[in-house]
Amino acid sequence: MKIYITEVAPRDGLQNINQIINTEKKIEFVNKLSETGVDEIEVSSFVSPKVIPQLSDAEEVFKSIKRNNNVIYSALVPNEKGLERALNVSVDKISVFTSASETFNLKNTNSTIEDSLSKFKNIIKISKESKKLTRAYISTAFWCPYEGKINPYKVKEIAIKLLEFGVDEISIGDTVGKASPDEVSELLEIILNDIHHDKIVLHFHTTYGMAMANVYVAYKNFSIYKFDSSAGGLGGCPFVPGAKGNIATEDLVYMLKRLNANVNVDIKKILMAFNVLEIEPQSYISKVINLI
Amino acid sequence: MKIYITEVAPRDGLQNINQIINTEKKIEFVNKLSETGVDEIEVSSFVSPKVIPQLSDAEEVFKSIKRNNNVIYSALVPNEKGLERALNVSVDKISVFTSASETFNLKNTNSTIEDSLSKFKNIIKISKESKKLTRAYISTAFWCPYEGKINPYKVKEIAIKLLEFGVDEISIGDTVGKASPDEVSELLEIILNDIHHDKIVLHFHTTYGMAMANVYVAYKNFSIYKFDSSAGGLGGCPFVPGAKGNIATEDLVYMLKRLNANVNVDIKKILMAFNVLEIEPQSYISKVINLI
Repeated sequence: MKIYITEVAPRDGLQNINQIINTEKKIEFVNKLSETGVDEIEVSSFVSPKVIPQLSDAEEVFKSIKRNNNVIYSALVPNEKGLERALNVSVDKISVFTSASETFNLKNTNSTIEDSLSKFKNIIKISKESKKLTRAYISTAFWCPYEGKINPYKVKEIAIKLLEFGVDEISIGDTVGKASPDEVSELLEIILNDIHHDKIVLHFHTTYGMAMANVYVAYKNFSIYKFDSSAGGLGGCPFVPGAKGNIATEDLVYMLKRLNANVNVDIKKILMAFNVLEIEPQSYISKVINLI
Repeated sequence: MKIYITEVAPRDGLQNINQIINTEKKIEFVNKLSETGVDEIEVSSFVSPKVIPQLSDAEEVFKSIKRNNNVIYSALVPNEKGLERALNVSVDKISVFTSASETFNLKNTNSTIEDSLSKFKNIIKISKESKKLTRAYISTAFWCPYEGKINPYKVKEIAIKLLEFGVDEISIGDTVGKASPDEVSELLEIILNDIHHDKIVLHFHTTYGMAMANVYVAYKNFSIYKFDSSAGGLGGCPFVPGAKGNIATEDLVYMLKRLNANVNVDIKKILMAFNVLEIEPQSYISKVINLI
């Protein structure tokens, strides 16, 4: 199966850094990422500019990027207003976002999980009527900074509801970066009993150093082939200043290539795209790029 | 099986950094490491001071450290002169060092592998007569910067010869840090057909980001329970300035604990020991130590 990579640096990465990146750079970043071989780029988020000022230029970015027909351009939408904005600029794929932790969801979105889900039902319906692809994120799917370990059956229950609404895929996020490879195996064993692995994307953070081992076990033992990653490891962890965040696209792709996975992303081009931001990349491969 | 950790920062770590650490600090570092729960500390190397000035105080360090009876204090010896020096200061365990790559061995030690082995035969004999434990390193066991991919059967052949000489264990090193989890599996499948896993130690570098995945697969699929690691990730890669080097003890121990391995190393104490060096640790866990 061909590996499917969603490049999340322009949204998840930029959202979690303090430095403000101007619109022109974002556009150039997305344009260069479009030529790297990644399958999807999460370009921005149609949240209120008050909530995430870094992404307040979502419309402008979407209107100005040069689209590659082989790439899907997605965006996060938190509500129907966000969906309307996204549809106005012809976003290819609509992503909604909930958490598997009740406390985290309340703090992050001011809704219970149930309220989030009922809100998403309509967003997904409209998106599908508009012929858009859809994704749902389930964040803090392993550990929550407030609730601790999350019950994998809770994640499965939420995933099944979202799939009943018609979402095309579920991105299961280890937001805290604390999942061990055994916990990833446990969750996948439980989930894949009822959900086809085609529907599952894994979104790992490297905060505790286990993201690469997690990718390995998911790919090797459970045939998961869809992963989220962030060029240059852009992102950090919102709960731990100074800690590492998203798994770096170049590290992920390098390992998958070395496992003979079918992955067509050009690592050098990923790093050249990242250079646009003038930020030091946080990855292993950026240090040894001339040796691969 | 209880995990067996050899802490290599005082030798392998310090050998690969430019900053000179004074003898007093090294002694304090080793003394603090002795109280962390690691099973073995590779304290220094009895090489010529001209070759590695950083470790020219090997005798002084060994004479001054306060030994914990639960810890084995080992040292590298390159030749019989080094062995004599090591025996004079009552080193517990003698380590010899060859490479699985002919070219690497020639460049690193000015000997063919065959010449290295015949030299080791006598060093191991004398060490055993002196009631010392022994270890042999096989470095560049997966990839060589000069020869590329190393044939795993070559590694096995060298390992078997060394075991015939009577060494207690073989530390198989991914010196370049380029081994993939699949290559680790391949080598272990080949080697463990003829060598008991008790005899095998794995020594991973994180240069290409795969060390944690490699530990995972070795522990989980092949029951390997002996690992080398370096407090604070001290070390770097001699061939790639700026690249990461040894797997960090704190990252290794954290993951093993999360896999419910029987490992009794105190991560906080590892980082407190590392603080003695006044060097910024290169690890994930050092960033999130307050959250574990």
